[in-house]
Amino acid sequence: MSQKLKNEELNRLSVDAFKSAQKRPIVLVLDNVRSLNNVGSAFRTADAFLIEEIILCGLTGSPPNKEIEKTALGATASVNWSHCETTLDAIKQLKEKKYRCYAVEQSTNSIALNKFSYADEKIALVFGNEVYGVDQEVMTTCEGVIEVPQLGTKHSFNISVTVGIVLWELLRDKV
Amino acid sequence: MSQKLKNEELNRLSVDAFKSAQKRPIVLVLDNVRSLNNVGSAFRTADAFLIEEIILCGLTGSPPNKEIEKTALGATASVNWSHCETTLDAIKQLKEKKYRCYAVEQSTNSIALNKFSYADEKIALVFGNEVYGVDQEVMTTCEGVIEVPQLGTKHSFNISVTVGIVLWELLRDKV
Repeated sequence: MSQKLKNEELNRLSVDAFKSAQKRPIVLVLDNVRSLNNVGSAFRTADAFLIEEIILCGLTGSPPNKEIEKTALGATASVNWSHCETTLDAIKQLKEKKYRCYAVEQSTNSIALNKFSYADEKIALVFGNEVYGVDQEVMTTCEGVIEVPQLGTKHSFNISVTVGIVLWELLRDKV
Repeated sequence: MSQKLKNEELNRLSVDAFKSAQKRPIVLVLDNVRSLNNVGSAFRTADAFLIEEIILCGLTGSPPNKEIEKTALGATASVNWSHCETTLDAIKQLKEKKYRCYAVEQSTNSIALNKFSYADEKIALVFGNEVYGVDQEVMTTCEGVIEVPQLGTKHSFNISVTVGIVLWELLRDKV
């Protein structure tokens, strides 16, 4: 017989404990993501997986913002974030810090997510605009492209869902 | 060098081809999910994974609905769905059809998602209300509870994200 657990029974981290905890060496890069709902959801998911940082690029909205909070539910206080004027600049800086940068897209020469190997190295994952996806020039500067295989009628997953699926796949052996 | 792929280059299924394709024997049960955004997203994700059916229970909204379409983006036309007055009735009917029913929740005696074994048998996954989660009585009638492990400060993932993560884990070897 299972009983639902309340937050206080789950032994979740406090914001202070989160701040000082060792993070997964994964950075999320949001390339001109328009929906504040998607931004907030990325924060909430990044919190759950102890992600190092979210870089909000270009027109991607930043905290403090009521719309972001509706889905972040406070995760903007725990997860480190910064804003970068352009996604290309963000990628350049990440490369200088020795991050391997991958766009998450439907593209030629992509690596299917379930074939992608990840061994806890420093990695940056770029998620693109709801309509235009990851900018082609940004994609070209990345080391590669990760694609979530799909079997149905639609072009792609929602960004929030993609962030969850990709992070889960990279970290499922480490949670 | 990777080039982005348009929908017509992805060889996605048409709605008719989806309708006649063999589905994954997985049913999603939405137990009084309030957000139409979450309902629409569940449709879009279910489409991507060729899911058999979505059962919308209690106060969960149903198509046709403009708010659902904003996130479903047409997936309400491909994915089979039905409405059931109560989630308990839905579970009862699924059990009669020999589905193994699992609630997705934070609970005592839960099975961590990465420890859950799935071998293409008939399964139903119950996702709960945004605030109250899966109803305790519903949970008790289920065969078990699946929990997505989390490392951060928040209680749970957004429902849309949880649907994506759980379906990916069950199907990652089969896509």
